[in-house]
Amino acid sequence: MAKITGMRKLAVACTLTIFTCSQGLLMEASKVDGKYPYNSAVVPLLSELVKLILSVMLLRRAKQRDPNGTIMTTDLKSIMLFPIPSIIYVMHNNVQFYTMAYVDAATYQILGNLKIVTTGILFRFALGRLMTRTQWIALLLLTVGATVSQISGCGGETLSAPIAGYLLGILSACLSATAGVYTEFLLKKNNDNLYWQNVQLYAFGVVFNGLRLTWDDFFGENSGGNWLLDCTNGFTFITWLIVINFSFSGLFVSWLQKFADTIVKVYATSSAMLLTALLSVSFFGLEPSLQLFLGITIACCSLVLYFMPPDLPKEKGVLPVTSGGTGTGSTTGSGSGYGGGATPRGGSNGEKLN
Amino acid sequence: MAKITGMRKLAVACTLTIFTCSQGLLMEASKVDGKYPYNSAVVPLLSELVKLILSVMLLRRAKQRDPNGTIMTTDLKSIMLFPIPSIIYVMHNNVQFYTMAYVDAATYQILGNLKIVTTGILFRFALGRLMTRTQWIALLLLTVGATVSQISGCGGETLSAPIAGYLLGILSACLSATAGVYTEFLLKKNNDNLYWQNVQLYAFGVVFNGLRLTWDDFFGENSGGNWLLDCTNGFTFITWLIVINFSFSGLFVSWLQKFADTIVKVYATSSAMLLTALLSVSFFGLEPSLQLFLGITIACCSLVLYFMPPDLPKEKGVLPVTSGGTGTGSTTGSGSGYGGGATPRGGSNGEKLN
Repeated sequence: MAKITGMRKLAVACTLTIFTCSQGLLMEASKVDGKYPYNSAVVPLLSELVKLILSVMLLRRAKQRDPNGTIMTTDLKSIMLFPIPSIIYVMHNNVQFYTMAYVDAATYQILGNLKIVTTGILFRFALGRLMTRTQWIALLLLTVGATVSQISGCGGETLSAPIAGYLLGILSACLSATAGVYTEFLLKKNNDNLYWQNVQLYAFGVVFNGLRLTWDDFFGENSGGNWLLDCTNGFTFITWLIVINFSFSGLFVSWLQKFADTIVKVYATSSAMLLTALLSVSFFGLEPSLQLFLGITIACCSLVLYFMPPDLPKEKGVLPVTSGGTGTGSTTGSGSGYGGGATPRGGSNGEKLN
Repeated sequence: MAKITGMRKLAVACTLTIFTCSQGLLMEASKVDGKYPYNSAVVPLLSELVKLILSVMLLRRAKQRDPNGTIMTTDLKSIMLFPIPSIIYVMHNNVQFYTMAYVDAATYQILGNLKIVTTGILFRFALGRLMTRTQWIALLLLTVGATVSQISGCGGETLSAPIAGYLLGILSACLSATAGVYTEFLLKKNNDNLYWQNVQLYAFGVVFNGLRLTWDDFFGENSGGNWLLDCTNGFTFITWLIVINFSFSGLFVSWLQKFADTIVKVYATSSAMLLTALLSVSFFGLEPSLQLFLGITIACCSLVLYFMPPDLPKEKGVLPVTSGGTGTGSTTGSGSGYGGGATPRGGSNGEKLN
């Protein structure tokens, strides 16, 4: 499988956008009176289980077809790298919990966009991937665009949460980025078969999700129950759709982290957030806000800047007038001194990028 | 005088930003009880007069120093092109007046940002200047950034003005762009001395501003007066500072339209708007809004994208890990199949720009 580059990354990002977007809409649709009528911690466990089963099946088929080409590193040192994403995920969940104690929900959502920038930084400095200056600007713009779409306060949002809230928000963004970038490192570090890597990831995922549910039974708000006995209570057809959707989008993410990269995932997630907001507007007949429209415009600019091939250099000088907008003749008689101005980005300034 | 390009345009834009910004702050400072205690239509007349006098003096000096090098086209056909900016200005004022009847002040201010895009379009198609795709995106982002900083409504701004309001807003933006682009065309169309061109521009400016005041005396709200008799009533030291500021920034704009271009002016105006908002926050001790902060970030990204030299192409492939963020070893063992992903903007896709 060749690596995915350029415009094909955009297609992959679009597919994941649709997955993530339908996830959001399904989860909204599964609510009854604004609450989930089922244990929402069971959904990730079940989807990890589905992904594990599918990965085992796919791995078996791959081994039957090509026993020698299906590379599997089975030494303990390698396997013990695979619980780390799950551990980061647990840490992230806890930090999120503490952050919420300091900042309101809107600020929390806005702080969440910082993970775009932190992912870029880790992508560059931990994975050592090169990014052009334009791509850095694109990531910054994606962060800003997502934030713009979330502005809703009266008389201007103010940045007035306690400093601890912001620090926790940054920590949360760093953990989220670490999880993404680390998983990419894990999947790309050798030529191991992706299904084998998935089996390891999801096996630990099942274990850690199970531990979390058990912990909740002992120490959670409604402690004293047994999640194994009533784990699918309140499940409807939509809930199962959510599980299936989570499973397939999870497999898709792991595929794209192996063959494309984490930044593609970041774009897909942010685009999905904006698309979900847009679809919610049309589903619930709301008036679209200017903020959402501006956020989507910024995100689209960011997408183009990040994924499109760079501008071709152009020759200097003024073209003949192509349309007589100002009525009189042409500008080609403008003399030699100041006729240009068309290529202010002339390459003479060999600045260092990044 | 050679034309101004690249990074020097940025310096010119910064200078104009300071001019325009101090203009806004001075005008705010000249208010008494929220109103101007003087006839605000007299200020542009006086500054046109100051510019005219200065230009005549500068032209005389230039002719004394270099009688042959000071080119002056004096045929009527050429001179009759110079009242056109003033005429467009009058039309623009009237359209503004009608627009205000349909949309509220906030929407009016937001619609005003459209002039950035219309200026870009005229700059490209009427003056025939080339712009890269990145520069188009930069102009779009500047428009969005200015708009973001102006969002203030409760529960999200909605786009709910009557369609006539939007159409008039677009017309207003087109007129504003036409004035800028046409003046650039006028100043660059031949090798005429800039001071001679200014003398013509400002002479007509004085005439049209005088006509406007006379018109107001006959048909305006407080008709029956005589503006010549009481034109500097209510003037303070600050008002005269405003006149001086208007005059020098006007001369500076005409200089930069001859030797740089209108887009530089557009950037300076938008940056000044954001800087004024920022300084107002610190002068009046307000809490800075998230919107303003985001708008400034977007405008800075736009500036960099528009004026900086394009990205240098980079070689493909993964660099060695430069920092051990993920703890274990390097990614260089990632095999040949999917090791890359660092240069998604690979130049193989020779798309047409613009």
